[in-house]
Amino acid sequence: MSSPFSTPAGVADLEEGSAFTPKFDAEGLVTCVATDAASGDVLMVAHMNAEALATTVATGEAWYYSRSRRALWKKGEASGHVQRVVEMRVDCDQDAVWIKVEQITAACHTGRRSCFYRVMPLGASAAKLEIRDERVFDPKAAYQKN
Amino acid sequence: MSSPFSTPAGVADLEEGSAFTPKFDAEGLVTCVATDAASGDVLMVAHMNAEALATTVATGEAWYYSRSRRALWKKGEASGHVQRVVEMRVDCDQDAVWIKVEQITAACHTGRRSCFYRVMPLGASAAKLEIRDERVFDPKAAYQKN
Repeated sequence: MSSPFSTPAGVADLEEGSAFTPKFDAEGLVTCVATDAASGDVLMVAHMNAEALATTVATGEAWYYSRSRRALWKKGEASGHVQRVVEMRVDCDQDAVWIKVEQITAACHTGRRSCFYRVMPLGASAAKLEIRDERVFDPKAAYQKN
Repeated sequence: MSSPFSTPAGVADLEEGSAFTPKFDAEGLVTCVATDAASGDVLMVAHMNAEALATTVATGEAWYYSRSRRALWKKGEASGHVQRVVEMRVDCDQDAVWIKVEQITAACHTGRRSCFYRVMPLGASAAKLEIRDERVFDPKAAYQKN
């Protein structure tokens, strides 16, 4: 699919203009941050290519591009844990988008509500990660192979 | 500087272990999302190399790596708009970190509190960006050259 988006113009248009001209990187991707529309927590960080971004805008459900699988991917297509997009924002240089979503069940494939379930303590160089969030679903059951 | 972090182990350790083993990409970077510790709003998305990440953990202030300038960069070093890190989290595959910060004045070089000051309306393919956030400082004055 050819990109439905125009090429970014100069810095002034990119930052202050009203044209949505996402600045895809060398791999054709922008970064997407999904936050929980209710709690404000960051749920996940992933990538969108032009098709994923256009499909998300058109449908109001979150689609991503998997770099490892090299494939368009609807969030929740396997687990049912879809994301309904409440609002989409774009940053100053248009290489990142922020979506506020209504997340069904949980965002993380490990079973936690958010992918960011571990805290890295500050100050101590030899610190260990601390798990703060419990599982809200059983990943073995949710992703069971047929 | 050699990386102070260990190499990521297998998936089980990466996802469920207590070792902080960030998974840097081919350019030696992880993605960092900074949110406002008070409002929860996403302020910016940027990148950290091993040195920026280690310095952020050690000092509790946000340091990044500028891909365009190819340089370590302390947030606010020019403007004074530093970020004090309240909490750092890492995601399931350890290629992204989320920092909750106390942001002095504003995060965006355009003068807005957040870099995500524009909304992209959903549903309409020919939609225009809508500016939602006003400037809280004058970028011309803040970044005035001496």
